[in-house]
Amino acid sequence: MEDNELGLVDEYWAAANYLTVAQIYLQDNALLREPLRPEHIKPRLLGHWGTSPGLSLVYVHLNRLIRRTGADVVYVAGPGHGGPALVANVYLEGTYSEIYPRISRDEQGLHRLVRQFSTPGGVPSHVSVPTPGSIHEGGELGYALVHATGAAMDHPDLVVACVIGDGEAETGPLEAAWKAPFFLNPTRDGAVLPVLHLNGYKISGPTVLGRRDDEEVLALLAAHGWAPTLVAGSEPTAVHRELADALDHAHREIRRIQTEAGEHGVRQRPRWPAIVLRTPKGWTGPRAVDGVPVEGTFRAHQVPLGGVRDNPEHLAMLEEWLRSYHPHRLFDQTGRLRPALAALAPEGDKRMGASPYANGGRLLVALDIPALDAYALPVPTPGRLRRETTRPLGELLRDLYRHTDSTANFRLFCPDETNSNRLGAVFEATDRCLIAPAREGDEHVSPDGRVMEVLSEHLCQGWLEGYLLTGRHGLFATYEAFAMVSASMAIQHTKWLEHVRDLPWRAPVSSLNVLLTSTCWRNDHNGFSHQGPGLIDTMLSLSGTVVRIYLPPDANTLLVVADHCLRSRDYVNLIVVDKQSHLQYLDLPSARAHAEAGASIWPWAGTERPVEPTDPGSTDPPDVVLACVGDVPTQETLAAAAILRAHVPYLRVRVVNVVDLMSLALPEVHPHGMTHENFERLFTHDGQVVVAWHGYARAFHQLLHGRNEPSRFHVRGFSEQGTTTTPFDMVVLNEVSRYHLVLEALRRAGRVPEGGNRLADHCRQMLARHHAHIREHFEDMPEVRDWVWPYA
Amino acid sequence: MEDNELGLVDEYWAAANYLTVAQIYLQDNALLREPLRPEHIKPRLLGHWGTSPGLSLVYVHLNRLIRRTGADVVYVAGPGHGGPALVANVYLEGTYSEIYPRISRDEQGLHRLVRQFSTPGGVPSHVSVPTPGSIHEGGELGYALVHATGAAMDHPDLVVACVIGDGEAETGPLEAAWKAPFFLNPTRDGAVLPVLHLNGYKISGPTVLGRRDDEEVLALLAAHGWAPTLVAGSEPTAVHRELADALDHAHREIRRIQTEAGEHGVRQRPRWPAIVLRTPKGWTGPRAVDGVPVEGTFRAHQVPLGGVRDNPEHLAMLEEWLRSYHPHRLFDQTGRLRPALAALAPEGDKRMGASPYANGGRLLVALDIPALDAYALPVPTPGRLRRETTRPLGELLRDLYRHTDSTANFRLFCPDETNSNRLGAVFEATDRCLIAPAREGDEHVSPDGRVMEVLSEHLCQGWLEGYLLTGRHGLFATYEAFAMVSASMAIQHTKWLEHVRDLPWRAPVSSLNVLLTSTCWRNDHNGFSHQGPGLIDTMLSLSGTVVRIYLPPDANTLLVVADHCLRSRDYVNLIVVDKQSHLQYLDLPSARAHAEAGASIWPWAGTERPVEPTDPGSTDPPDVVLACVGDVPTQETLAAAAILRAHVPYLRVRVVNVVDLMSLALPEVHPHGMTHENFERLFTHDGQVVVAWHGYARAFHQLLHGRNEPSRFHVRGFSEQGTTTTPFDMVVLNEVSRYHLVLEALRRAGRVPEGGNRLADHCRQMLARHHAHIREHFEDMPEVRDWVWPYA
Repeated sequence: MEDNELGLVDEYWAAANYLTVAQIYLQDNALLREPLRPEHIKPRLLGHWGTSPGLSLVYVHLNRLIRRTGADVVYVAGPGHGGPALVANVYLEGTYSEIYPRISRDEQGLHRLVRQFSTPGGVPSHVSVPTPGSIHEGGELGYALVHATGAAMDHPDLVVACVIGDGEAETGPLEAAWKAPFFLNPTRDGAVLPVLHLNGYKISGPTVLGRRDDEEVLALLAAHGWAPTLVAGSEPTAVHRELADALDHAHREIRRIQTEAGEHGVRQRPRWPAIVLRTPKGWTGPRAVDGVPVEGTFRAHQVPLGGVRDNPEHLAMLEEWLRSYHPHRLFDQTGRLRPALAALAPEGDKRMGASPYANGGRLLVALDIPALDAYALPVPTPGRLRRETTRPLGELLRDLYRHTDSTANFRLFCPDETNSNRLGAVFEATDRCLIAPAREGDEHVSPDGRVMEVLSEHLCQGWLEGYLLTGRHGLFATYEAFAMVSASMAIQHTKWLEHVRDLPWRAPVSSLNVLLTSTCWRNDHNGFSHQGPGLIDTMLSLSGTVVRIYLPPDANTLLVVADHCLRSRDYVNLIVVDKQSHLQYLDLPSARAHAEAGASIWPWAGTERPVEPTDPGSTDPPDVVLACVGDVPTQETLAAAAILRAHVPYLRVRVVNVVDLMSLALPEVHPHGMTHENFERLFTHDGQVVVAWHGYARAFHQLLHGRNEPSRFHVRGFSEQGTTTTPFDMVVLNEVSRYHLVLEALRRAGRVPEGGNRLADHCRQMLARHHAHIREHFEDMPEVRDWVWPYA
Repeated sequence: MEDNELGLVDEYWAAANYLTVAQIYLQDNALLREPLRPEHIKPRLLGHWGTSPGLSLVYVHLNRLIRRTGADVVYVAGPGHGGPALVANVYLEGTYSEIYPRISRDEQGLHRLVRQFSTPGGVPSHVSVPTPGSIHEGGELGYALVHATGAAMDHPDLVVACVIGDGEAETGPLEAAWKAPFFLNPTRDGAVLPVLHLNGYKISGPTVLGRRDDEEVLALLAAHGWAPTLVAGSEPTAVHRELADALDHAHREIRRIQTEAGEHGVRQRPRWPAIVLRTPKGWTGPRAVDGVPVEGTFRAHQVPLGGVRDNPEHLAMLEEWLRSYHPHRLFDQTGRLRPALAALAPEGDKRMGASPYANGGRLLVALDIPALDAYALPVPTPGRLRRETTRPLGELLRDLYRHTDSTANFRLFCPDETNSNRLGAVFEATDRCLIAPAREGDEHVSPDGRVMEVLSEHLCQGWLEGYLLTGRHGLFATYEAFAMVSASMAIQHTKWLEHVRDLPWRAPVSSLNVLLTSTCWRNDHNGFSHQGPGLIDTMLSLSGTVVRIYLPPDANTLLVVADHCLRSRDYVNLIVVDKQSHLQYLDLPSARAHAEAGASIWPWAGTERPVEPTDPGSTDPPDVVLACVGDVPTQETLAAAAILRAHVPYLRVRVVNVVDLMSLALPEVHPHGMTHENFERLFTHDGQVVVAWHGYARAFHQLLHGRNEPSRFHVRGFSEQGTTTTPFDMVVLNEVSRYHLVLEALRRAGRVPEGGNRLADHCRQMLARHHAHIREHFEDMPEVRDWVWPYA
């Protein structure tokens, strides 16, 4: 780098640092036109200075790289706490003012810029949704690299620069994400360029990598498969030179890898470049405050000078610090960045804040989803055919892969269970992706595969999030219980989408679709650790504008639901359905109508007569409503209804199936929520309802709040009883079996029908027989028997 | 290893493998006394063969090591799916029969052993609570190494052998846990001996490490700070020799490191030994089935021969496979392991299945918790003093460290927030632990420190779980929102404890105590990503026998609650309280009484007159009850009550504070649940109740199910509205502010009191003023204003 360029780069960095400090401290006098006075200082000082100069340094140097190479670069800021640094940079490059015109590129805009930061009604202190160029909220640490990797997939021209703080580097998800080189194919994917930014400290203690020797850190990245370069120092000129060289080198390497792969295919796993950047925490800030060192220590983490409003010495230090960046050399009389500096930023969509990759909806190409008829199961009579419910979905996904061969904008992500989840048809269209030499006996494994399997829910979900936010489509299929592993990621993604809806400049992106399969009811072979429907509870509490939860009872309804979810935008869709062989109920047209309604009466299953499905209100009210949600509860409910029909045919029983869980909510709580009128058309105004529900009963009770007499709903669900056992024993253990439902229905029915008592006796006998069968099996082993056996 | 010993070790391994295969397949003819027939085969074949021979190999060799060295070893089986292998080994060593006498060491016991596996009412298919010697359920992968590390802390004589499968090695938490050498102090902690067992495959695909070269895998472990040894092969004799040598070497190294550290202190971070073990998946099983390779491929993952009951060829292969272990050479006429083989196992408590370390309650020394008076805040008048609520708890924890100086059985685990969470007093007693050279400017960092800070909720919680299950005490303090990062671990630990209660041989262990601080209401400085009370929802659904949730309103109540939790056993206790400066309400005796009751009327806060706190039923019913749960909601409720008292003194208002959330549940749902009588003594039989609640409103509604007229409870809680703003704006955004509560109370009160309308106008004005204030601040910036502003 020539001296002249170096000087300009350094000044640009000074401008970013100046604006960062100004945002944290100032509410007025933003350009220091007059001496700093206490009333210029914000009443409450918030923000994270420590990481900010490093973030800006990388930004400024990436600007230079983009200008030199024309590369498309997205910037992922792992240390998202350094929000003001990113805001400063997108402001300096002009993007911010284009999106938020009031924050103009003049003194008034600059005034507003500093005033809005971390103020009530202003902009949040983190890099987040309102920050142009961001696809990653760095509040909950751990996901920077996994998001960056997902963003790079199928974007061959993109370089995703990913700054990782040494605090974040301690997290599990981040460590898992270092495996990216095994999943990025240089012939079709873009590059991830990790910049591990070590400044040594977290909030108040040292970090593990911060305390390791340079060689050790380099060896760690090398061991993960990267080719790291070290840039370290506290002398700006030297660091500028080294970083510029390191970035030039990294970019050349990326292009060399991609070119060679393009010419010769993926012969071996590339060693992608990475950068280890060691600079002082709070670099260019106060060296020491009140006699205690600050720069380069944990004390620089947040606001290094706490007492500026009351302590004249601190105020003077702040002024000195601000003036050390020479704002009057950086900004002209109008408050605009000097042209020579402004020219250092890229232009148009090449600016990282303006990159369409980071506003993925701009790149979105709608999926070409084939017509569902080709995959639908023929179901002439409900409840006869048994099929693995997820298998037809697998065939649909296979053809989605085929249809997106040229757009390359759909992927399936799954820990290691694509086959196990009966989605294996996708392997007729593509392979599992792994950048590794083939081995004899491999089945559907290759670097060109586009099914993403890795035994980490964090990676699967995080890759998908990055993939979606940069304008593509996908599905994360996982064991229901282990979806909780990445529950906090689902929460953070939901929060992201909650914000997105208030920012029209963010073009809608494809929804985060999560298929929860291998459910609690059918993990009888894996046992208690695999039995947990808790993600439903987690998502239920989040914002109704974003979250949707579907429990299709069978394969055709699953197809309709999946089709809907894949077409939707800016939602988080949970689809809960088991993979094992289950009874099938609805043909495709019925499934469509059912999914559209969200919940419907299944007249063929009940004994309400005469039934007028179009206007059930015209008949006498049923003696009891059997409601069911989820495949196994539906099966048990239909069996219960069949038993009731056979034994007490005069009991008026209505069966209601719910596929769209949120349809039960009040319309003011969720956009899918049913009106009271519709709700009571299904569940009556005040009749008794026996509910067989997939998840924890209490989660279901939440939904009934606000409906007439919620206590008339008797909810049976998963009650945390489980082990390795038979499927039927699972429903017995949790008291959701057909016999439990019949007994409950008889108890709740408005009148005891003829034969009711005999039927109740029959059910109790059937349950006793089941219990006796299991008891007998271990009659001589009470220790073993008793730990799973809740019946005294 | 001499040939004779090698032969015996190999035979012992054959016995373990034989019993593993027998458990998966057989329900009769367990010792193959007669030719195998279809009726000997279980009706449903469950289990994971692939990982089992490796698990047994390590077990048998650890037995040898223990006999040679007298070491205390705990075995953590990461690939917990290999349950039958561990059951086989603890059976062979005799432990299993001691705990479960019916599974005796004879043919009948052996028959029962194979019959019970993975059968309804039998033993689960995973290594789990009923497995003697286990402290780790390997169902949800990722936590083997973190549990092992926690178990080793403060157990200087212990070696925790930790088998990590190459599937698990892909998870984030496992990768994070490789950092153990930075946190284990050889002068006081035991050793973790990782055995990375690579067999190349997950369920149906290859693994990343399984496809890496030996040197690459060794380099990765070395880069994490370990000194790994490779043992690889598919020829048993050679592998036996290499593994025996590797274990001997590892043990010598561990002792050398510990001895040197004992003599010279921790001069530098030790390079602890580790083993990379590469053996075929499903080793010793069928090479090929139906012409397709099985041994060494993913097809060996579960049950390699699926059709044995129906396919005579498969049945013959199974018989051949079983007989390849020569069961009649291994077991004598009575079905007992031959004495020469039995002699290879350690004796008594040295057997890994019998180790008291793995049944930690046996080692438990109750905490010497100092009297609380020394830490209590003086609170002569409620609601005057402001203090950081968690600070006195920090002082208590400091003295807990001092009191446990000799027992070394208490630790605090915290991502990086001990100071930030106002628990910094602990640093008067001890330091942060980091095995790294000291640096100038370090504050409270040393290898001898016993506060565990690492920026990973997975590590903090997992270390604590391992520490607790091996007989110690601790607290995990974390930001409320980020507790969701390790929510699935909390679920799995709860499931573990749910099982423990049915197994009297498992001595009670100290509870998992989780302090959720920096809560949603006071993350106004960090913004939306930090605002999430979801862990309450997650835990609410789990078993009432294990989970407790406390929301102390102030510092003294927090002390009482923490004291109770630290003394409790076998629970998961959530304590939710903010760290910022808050009003204090109760002196220590009142706090004790309040916490004991779980929920109480605060007569001084209400305007019920005459109030008879001992029998509130004696007075006229209140016009409205204001209930509050959590510190910020309590503050707003008390402010609302004060406003009502000032403006409409004739309105009879009762204030009820809830500290033990589960006291609201029905007694049949939770042991803390109040009777209807007690519940209605607080909340009246049918009066209106305005609830200000810490978390998501729907979570609270769950708890009211089964109470009289739950719709009379009007719950306001966190409604997912947040950003960087002021604390007061947070309660306004979520409509839980004092003004909202007054308005709701006036709306719900049985009669509109004189002045009620005027007061309502006043409240609306106050809210309008607040809104105007924020609006005004950004009157000229609608884009910025509107995205946080839900009021049209």
